[in-house]
Amino acid sequence: MTHKSATLDFAEGTHPSRDMQELGEAARAAAAVLARSPQEQRNQALRAGARALRAAETEILAANAQDMKSAEARGLSAALLDRLLLDPKRLEAMAQGLEAIAELPDPLHRVLAEWEQPSGLRLQRVAVPLGVIGIIYESRPNVTADAAALCLKAGNAAILRGGSESFASSGAILDALREGLTAAGLPEGCLQRPATRDRALVGEMLRAHQWIDVIVPRGGRSLIERVMQEAKVPVLAHLEGNNHTYLHSAADPRRALDLTLNAKMRRTGICGATETLLVDAAVAAELLPPILEALSEKGCELRGDPTVQALSDRVAPAEEADWDKEYLAPILAIKTVSGVEEALDHIARHGSGHTECIVTEDPAAAGLFLERVDAAIVMHNTSTQFADGGEFGMGAEIGIATGKLHARGPVGTEQLTSYKYLVRSDGVTRA
Amino acid sequence: MTHKSATLDFAEGTHPSRDMQELGEAARAAAAVLARSPQEQRNQALRAGARALRAAETEILAANAQDMKSAEARGLSAALLDRLLLDPKRLEAMAQGLEAIAELPDPLHRVLAEWEQPSGLRLQRVAVPLGVIGIIYESRPNVTADAAALCLKAGNAAILRGGSESFASSGAILDALREGLTAAGLPEGCLQRPATRDRALVGEMLRAHQWIDVIVPRGGRSLIERVMQEAKVPVLAHLEGNNHTYLHSAADPRRALDLTLNAKMRRTGICGATETLLVDAAVAAELLPPILEALSEKGCELRGDPTVQALSDRVAPAEEADWDKEYLAPILAIKTVSGVEEALDHIARHGSGHTECIVTEDPAAAGLFLERVDAAIVMHNTSTQFADGGEFGMGAEIGIATGKLHARGPVGTEQLTSYKYLVRSDGVTRA
Repeated sequence: MTHKSATLDFAEGTHPSRDMQELGEAARAAAAVLARSPQEQRNQALRAGARALRAAETEILAANAQDMKSAEARGLSAALLDRLLLDPKRLEAMAQGLEAIAELPDPLHRVLAEWEQPSGLRLQRVAVPLGVIGIIYESRPNVTADAAALCLKAGNAAILRGGSESFASSGAILDALREGLTAAGLPEGCLQRPATRDRALVGEMLRAHQWIDVIVPRGGRSLIERVMQEAKVPVLAHLEGNNHTYLHSAADPRRALDLTLNAKMRRTGICGATETLLVDAAVAAELLPPILEALSEKGCELRGDPTVQALSDRVAPAEEADWDKEYLAPILAIKTVSGVEEALDHIARHGSGHTECIVTEDPAAAGLFLERVDAAIVMHNTSTQFADGGEFGMGAEIGIATGKLHARGPVGTEQLTSYKYLVRSDGVTRA
Repeated sequence: MTHKSATLDFAEGTHPSRDMQELGEAARAAAAVLARSPQEQRNQALRAGARALRAAETEILAANAQDMKSAEARGLSAALLDRLLLDPKRLEAMAQGLEAIAELPDPLHRVLAEWEQPSGLRLQRVAVPLGVIGIIYESRPNVTADAAALCLKAGNAAILRGGSESFASSGAILDALREGLTAAGLPEGCLQRPATRDRALVGEMLRAHQWIDVIVPRGGRSLIERVMQEAKVPVLAHLEGNNHTYLHSAADPRRALDLTLNAKMRRTGICGATETLLVDAAVAAELLPPILEALSEKGCELRGDPTVQALSDRVAPAEEADWDKEYLAPILAIKTVSGVEEALDHIARHGSGHTECIVTEDPAAAGLFLERVDAAIVMHNTSTQFADGGEFGMGAEIGIATGKLHARGPVGTEQLTSYKYLVRSDGVTRA
């Protein structure tokens, strides 16, 4: 991925709009200031932003009421309306989120490696900001605060383009965050957003390699697909979490029950939820009945292959398409396999590279599974619901990356940095 | 950057050709085998490949003679013909390159981090291959051996699409490398190349996100631009090295002379060569005359601003465009600046994010320069010609990345890996 490509002459780039140019230039200029800001100044901006959010409760909730009214008039679904809604509790959680990010260690100025060469060169690899991050997101206005705070903490400027349905709410939140920047003596340009709801700007951001170093999309599949299809700027994204919990023949029955229930039902709408249960055929009759019963009693719809169906009349037939579905709902696909190899094959074909778990008391089977599965997170005897930057001890996260470049798995403040090499010597020339 | 996006329905992707599908599927299957190969097996393949290269000298040189004949008939420039030419010495260097890569430490299986969480989770972040790497390169047939060896060492399969002018040479080299794979018991599919010179396949590779994890282009500006414009697959590239050496007012005159001569003239055609010299105006009259004389005597063309021109009649006027040029030739642009701030501004506007150096005996000025310059490599009192993976102690490199994502600076075997998280616990569920 190349940098400073302002001189690249992309045929289709044509001329950016004045809106895009203003956003981009202001963000670039602010990023240069941020890159040399001490961590205490960035933390002050976050804490002052939290205070400003609380102080602006009335304005923010009024803006949100306006967004809710338009959204209702446009007939948005109850689920989308709930995502859009702000209340004092959600606003307080947002403010506390900013304060928590201020408490995290500085992801910048870390010396990642340090060594000397026989030539006399003394080398250091040190963490630096990525630069300008473009966030393209959908209805949840709290992404404005979370994403902005993570970018700032890592010394990056951000251009935030939220869904048009949350335009007023996001604007009010951003105003508070910018008050925080001003209070800490940082330029308001650190956090930019388009002045209008014009959708063309999304396309412009995706091509704005001269001003944006990386795009982070946050939203549903169609948004991510559009971003990946159109982007000329590198993208850090997660497509989906079609996660498997695999009950191996040496699984402990109690653990198998507890882990499956938790992995599927604790929260069904998060990307770390298990969507397909794989079970060794040899132990299906022993392990599955209590699990199927417990899931069903918790309201989970069950879709299984013929072997699974034969074990319970609560199981509907699974279709081939079920193995590829990320339900994000209380539905579980269940398949019997002949052993680890078939489980690995199934995961290689249907998994989305997010989180995969084996439940077994056999260390050899666990070792094989951990080695072979190609996913961001591979687990042994652990609920897939732990796929979360906070649970990993990384503090907040902007998402879980399912790609293999730059960051894989939870994307926290460290993953929002790059590095550079500092090379010192006493006038050494190359032979 | 997302992975396993086989189900992504890119509008323009349409149907891949059978050639692309065969290459892609074979590479994916081979990558899965490579990912679990012990390092000794990968090293054996490299050493056996070196032996096979030497044994096939006659065939390889005959294939190269055929390429040279067509290239001459098509009127390729002397410089391109020299890049294309193979001889026994270049072939031996290629074989030794493979052996040197075999000696490097294993970039896989490194435990990059390891910690426990209060919840009972035990976490490891371990290095894994990227998967399948697409190499798109121009005339130099030795890239076939170098790039293939680096990919293999890091457990990656590679699809190599060389320039059509080196088609026969690259094919003969690849045949030898595949003999090495077979001798080590690895699938030949680890190294693939198109069966024809069909240029449409380059475009297909750039869109083949279902089979290729990252594209590494190696070649001139127009190739890199095309790749960056069309790629749907992440790209790891360097655009250019418009590097500066900055002589600060506290520069030691002897060091300033030695470093400038070496940085510009040691080899003018490499990406780490200095292209613009910046000099503090206050010391220009003292520092520059001997430097200008020495450069001119070594055959370097000098282009300077009026202040520089006034110091020597060997200096032609520099135009505005000179500040943006990567000459890769014995030409140097020279500009006087008022101090560190103006030097930083000039570099921010004209630098390409590759390698930048300050020459000074003042630690404060050096510190400011090292902190502020946003480039892959920032140096103090060191020749920019050291911008090289080998000189950094990283062994061979596939190039110098000027982007900020994933890898910045020299891209060696470690940079050709990703990581995954291994998470173990004793049946822990999330509250």
